Amino acid sequence: MNANPSSPPTLRDVAEAAGVHTATASRALNPKTRQQISAETARRVMRAAESLGYQPNSVARSLKTSRSATVGLVIPDLTNPLFPPIVRGVESVLESEGYNVWIVNTDNDAERERAKIESLRSRQVEGLIVATARLEHPLLRQLHEQGVTMVLVNRQVEDLPIPAVTGDDATGITLAVRHLAELGHTSIAHLAGPLGTSTGRLRARAFRHAVRDHELRDDPALTVECAYWSEHDGAAAMRSLLDDRRDFTAVVAGNDLIALGCYDVFAERGLSCPSDISVIGFNDMPFLDKLRPPLTTVAVPHHELGAEAARMLLDCIGDPSRPARSLLLPATLVVRGSTAPPITH
Amino acid sequence: MNANPSSPPTLRDVAEAAGVHTATASRALNPKTRQQISAETARRVMRAAESLGYQPNSVARSLKTSRSATVGLVIPDLTNPLFPPIVRGVESVLESEGYNVWIVNTDNDAERERAKIESLRSRQVEGLIVATARLEHPLLRQLHEQGVTMVLVNRQVEDLPIPAVTGDDATGITLAVRHLAELGHTSIAHLAGPLGTSTGRLRARAFRHAVRDHELRDDPALTVECAYWSEHDGAAAMRSLLDDRRDFTAVVAGNDLIALGCYDVFAERGLSCPSDISVIGFNDMPFLDKLRPPLTTVAVPHHELGAEAARMLLDCIGDPSRPARSLLLPATLVVRGSTAPPITH
Repeated sequence: MNANPSSPPTLRDVAEAAGVHTATASRALNPKTRQQISAETARRVMRAAESLGYQPNSVARSLKTSRSATVGLVIPDLTNPLFPPIVRGVESVLESEGYNVWIVNTDNDAERERAKIESLRSRQVEGLIVATARLEHPLLRQLHEQGVTMVLVNRQVEDLPIPAVTGDDATGITLAVRHLAELGHTSIAHLAGPLGTSTGRLRARAFRHAVRDHELRDDPALTVECAYWSEHDGAAAMRSLLDDRRDFTAVVAGNDLIALGCYDVFAERGLSCPSDISVIGFNDMPFLDKLRPPLTTVAVPHHELGAEAARMLLDCIGDPSRPARSLLLPATLVVRGSTAPPITH
Repeated sequence: MNANPSSPPTLRDVAEAAGVHTATASRALNPKTRQQISAETARRVMRAAESLGYQPNSVARSLKTSRSATVGLVIPDLTNPLFPPIVRGVESVLESEGYNVWIVNTDNDAERERAKIESLRSRQVEGLIVATARLEHPLLRQLHEQGVTMVLVNRQVEDLPIPAVTGDDATGITLAVRHLAELGHTSIAHLAGPLGTSTGRLRARAFRHAVRDHELRDDPALTVECAYWSEHDGAAAMRSLLDDRRDFTAVVAGNDLIALGCYDVFAERGLSCPSDISVIGFNDMPFLDKLRPPLTTVAVPHHELGAEAARMLLDCIGDPSRPARSLLLPATLVVRGSTAPPITH
């Protein structure tokens, strides 16, 4: 169990031997928190600790007795259907380990985010799972410097070693552009999400690379940034593209809501999807198969994103010295009715 | 300001004079909590208290110094798009009064609900807004008996004086049945929500009354109960109706998700909506206008439901002796493409 027989066994070794998370092992070994887990699990962990000759570090132990068995989950916009499956994924893992999850919704507002995270911290949550990250995020930098245990989900920050679980955005966009190229489209627009978010920036970059790889029209004016990941901003971006009389036959939208904003504009302008313009979304949020037309999109396993973020947080709680790492979950293309070959005039 | 000049002014009188909620007035008058609200509001409240000659009750005061400025919001299923707008409505009111909102998701599980509410209470939330109520709800009964400040939103309990804010379900269903009757339908099915919830029971009752009022076919076998408010259970109920070879040309679904489950079954069975079967949903959740066909539904102002529940909770926090009352918000019918006259064979 212990990779290096000359070094003393660690909490992680005990956890592995007992087949539980380090966070669970830590609670099992602490009389003050033992009742938070099942008696059977506690026994298994104590037996493993005994057989390995594990000696708990008393400083670390004293830090851990203030455990609240609560984790905060920070969501930017609960009305975006992308987030509820992430929430459920997070809960499925944390609840089975005896944790409660408190969710706060920041509505994309930095002031609100600060107040809510402060309120969670003042109630001693053991860690945060954060879905609001922007590339430049002074608050997250500050929390990181203060040693707050955090995992990012869906988005990342720049230049900060905070663990993150995200979808493979670059591959997803590459699949979307390839699908349109194979249908015969040569002039494709991109309605990018906010470029201050890792998802917005990564998808926009991947779009540019894919367009060049397929030798399609490479025109920076065919990429328009949306201020928010919303139907409203997607519609505004599509209107501005159409008003500029840009020539394009397909759109890769930064996410599904932006794609739905395009649907609204097509209805306003008497355009037909996919015969006039093909559209691809991103996320595969619920109900897309029932839309008119059903939306072709990039699917990301959001429930799994939440579950993996929760597992990573448990690892961090159990072993705060663990180096940060990033986990990328695979994206796939779901072809539905919103993409078709371009009409040749 | 003070209705009865012979009785001493109350906190409510001060709040009214200052144009703020009683909860805000209470915080303004307490030096320990004053910094939670804006300096300008605090000054306005203190001036009002002075001019009215208000004397705070020191017992009540001491009870109130443990204020956490936090409220818990208990949601049964965050993936149901009905709830995010309620969450935002709750937050819009509570945040402007300086409160934080912690959201917990129970996934319709009584054990989970108990654990999460316990965890919120152990962190001294000042009150709960509860969207999980079932007609018989032992946990809510127990919390009520323990004096927990609570407001129900969207659903009610039976025989317990807990304030509640709900949509006018009966009127909504009446409008739906009338619309179908006017189109010429005479045999209408109802896929009811869980009859252990006030929404499920009220809608099923209103359906029966409306069918009788319009002298339509009154057959109990045309009402099928769904175990949960979900697409999956809606689809199962629609399949059982079709398998029973019940004769009907229209369906009033208990909510939009149940209606979407019907869409799935129509696709499986080669039925066309609305030409073979008309469908009406309930809630007017997002994106229904973009479905194939766009879903006719009953709209309930969910943001307002949340906002009113939050206002009611602030009233209860400010004045715990206030009698419970119920607030009913109006429902309207939104006619879209899923309803049409029946085909006459």
